[in-house]
Amino acid sequence: MSELRKDPISGKWVIIAPERMRRPNFSGLKDWQTDEKANCPFCPGKEDFTEPTIQQIPSQGQWQVRAFANKFPALRVEGEINRKGKGIYDLVSGVGAHEIIVNTRDHGQDLSGLSIENLNQLLQLYQIRILDLYNDTRLRYAMIFINHGPEAGATVAHSHSQLIATAILPELIKEKLLHCRKYFIHKERCLICDIINQELEEKERIVSENDYFLAIVPYAARVPFEIQIYPKNHSHDFTQCSNESLKYLSQMIKQMTQKIQRALNSPAYNLVLHSSPNIKAQGIPGQWQSLRQDFHWHIEIVPRLTLAAGFEWGTGYFINPSEPEECAEFLRSIDTAN
Amino acid sequence: MSELRKDPISGKWVIIAPERMRRPNFSGLKDWQTDEKANCPFCPGKEDFTEPTIQQIPSQGQWQVRAFANKFPALRVEGEINRKGKGIYDLVSGVGAHEIIVNTRDHGQDLSGLSIENLNQLLQLYQIRILDLYNDTRLRYAMIFINHGPEAGATVAHSHSQLIATAILPELIKEKLLHCRKYFIHKERCLICDIINQELEEKERIVSENDYFLAIVPYAARVPFEIQIYPKNHSHDFTQCSNESLKYLSQMIKQMTQKIQRALNSPAYNLVLHSSPNIKAQGIPGQWQSLRQDFHWHIEIVPRLTLAAGFEWGTGYFINPSEPEECAEFLRSIDTAN
Repeated sequence: MSELRKDPISGKWVIIAPERMRRPNFSGLKDWQTDEKANCPFCPGKEDFTEPTIQQIPSQGQWQVRAFANKFPALRVEGEINRKGKGIYDLVSGVGAHEIIVNTRDHGQDLSGLSIENLNQLLQLYQIRILDLYNDTRLRYAMIFINHGPEAGATVAHSHSQLIATAILPELIKEKLLHCRKYFIHKERCLICDIINQELEEKERIVSENDYFLAIVPYAARVPFEIQIYPKNHSHDFTQCSNESLKYLSQMIKQMTQKIQRALNSPAYNLVLHSSPNIKAQGIPGQWQSLRQDFHWHIEIVPRLTLAAGFEWGTGYFINPSEPEECAEFLRSIDTAN
Repeated sequence: MSELRKDPISGKWVIIAPERMRRPNFSGLKDWQTDEKANCPFCPGKEDFTEPTIQQIPSQGQWQVRAFANKFPALRVEGEINRKGKGIYDLVSGVGAHEIIVNTRDHGQDLSGLSIENLNQLLQLYQIRILDLYNDTRLRYAMIFINHGPEAGATVAHSHSQLIATAILPELIKEKLLHCRKYFIHKERCLICDIINQELEEKERIVSENDYFLAIVPYAARVPFEIQIYPKNHSHDFTQCSNESLKYLSQMIKQMTQKIQRALNSPAYNLVLHSSPNIKAQGIPGQWQSLRQDFHWHIEIVPRLTLAAGFEWGTGYFINPSEPEECAEFLRSIDTAN
């Protein structure tokens, strides 16, 4: 059984999940090349090799995107949530959800190669899974992320997303919420709306924009060619994103991953969705119950060209050997026409 | 010129250092194998390939350990510190120090293969360099770390340490100081002294101890086989560590790196020293001026067996697929006799 343990010195939670030791390719980089189509557990026709389907799109017949429980979960839905102390240490039982969402039927494609329709189905399935999990009032936060390529932590090559829902509000999310909240109290404006306005005015870090979304290399990008995608209109909750708007998001994700693939010779990357926590959750601290005005959901795409080293581990801050403005300029110049 | 930029959403600082793009092996993993002794800039006789020696031990004649400025610095000592805003963004000019300390003359050895005398000289040089840099009252924090192996971010194979001193107190350090401070105010005891006492009592996470130091796998270890080394007697400042005590620390570092090398088939690892900030620094917030009672320096050794993936990037917390107690037991069983 997994558990969440809190480091009393840094204040950060760690999921201790010994079951995950049994994953394929635990050593990370070594067996990536051997992960061939013939043995791929995420390909159509191999559904019996995974846990049963929770949800798929289309909902009947041949799936295009498909969600199921992770076979080697960091957390499990079963069991009681048990918060306890052990001397100086804090501990929460590892109740939560850990799902896999296969992004496409096509073994050989990453996001950049998917059709807009396929991407749209994927984003719809994200919404469905988050909303479903948020009916479990024990769960405070659902995080969706993609690890693409071995250097980004992927252990299966077939393009897939992961969803981890926890009974804890993750530290980094809490910090982001806090900074947005403080700014709102001070200014009565959304921090991220203000960032968007400044970026639209200065233009030098914009990679692309469409009717609904803006993609930038952030001012304090942690790594070369980091990209953030924001909805231009204020919205705290990704699950409220309209179908119309999702199509524009699909286009933006396709365009950004194409640019990265072409500009940087198909690097590994992570994609992370930051949306608001489950406001229906039991015991979620009162200050997060009303987020409509002061949080603004967004997506981060992080190419893994450099390795986080001792300095980042030790200090929590990053050395980025590139200028965000130059990276944005270079990405703007990359043609994404087929 | 480098600069420090603050991400307004996460509150974290990033060092934007375009000069570092010119480093050898920017792509990280690719050219590690070609970094042969013949071309090594850190070997004896190649001193002209680096910046001039700042300090060495022994101070005259043939050096055993040697400090010099990084040729591709993230920060430079020259220039004025300039804190300014740019619309919504915060910026500090990249004044600081970035030094390399070559750990040994011997090209082929990592820490586990060094003599106790060599390790002792290395730790003494750490103390000398920190104390020297802390005479510059613009600098608030000096971080020492080792990246060993390409997966840990090293771009030169010859065993070396790095020292980065900044005009900013890094977030992670600030959080650690804050947690220790809060605990002290609440209990009138040092948090880390209390951790040490609990670990000595429970014994299950101890890897080794000697007269002066305790090595444990921490309760909330972020990765398999993470090790922390604490001085058993309360001390906030590594530079005050006596020569007698440094010998015991040298033994402990040798023993721990030997255990890791033997148990885990010579993995890449990071080593990070966490000590107190420069209390002489100008403008360092008042609450850190007196740290004697509530901070406790320590060393972290982090084997890089797993890769930080999207989840860690997105949430700031780690999934550790191993039990700290099992890791400690396994490490205890590894013989370090030669």
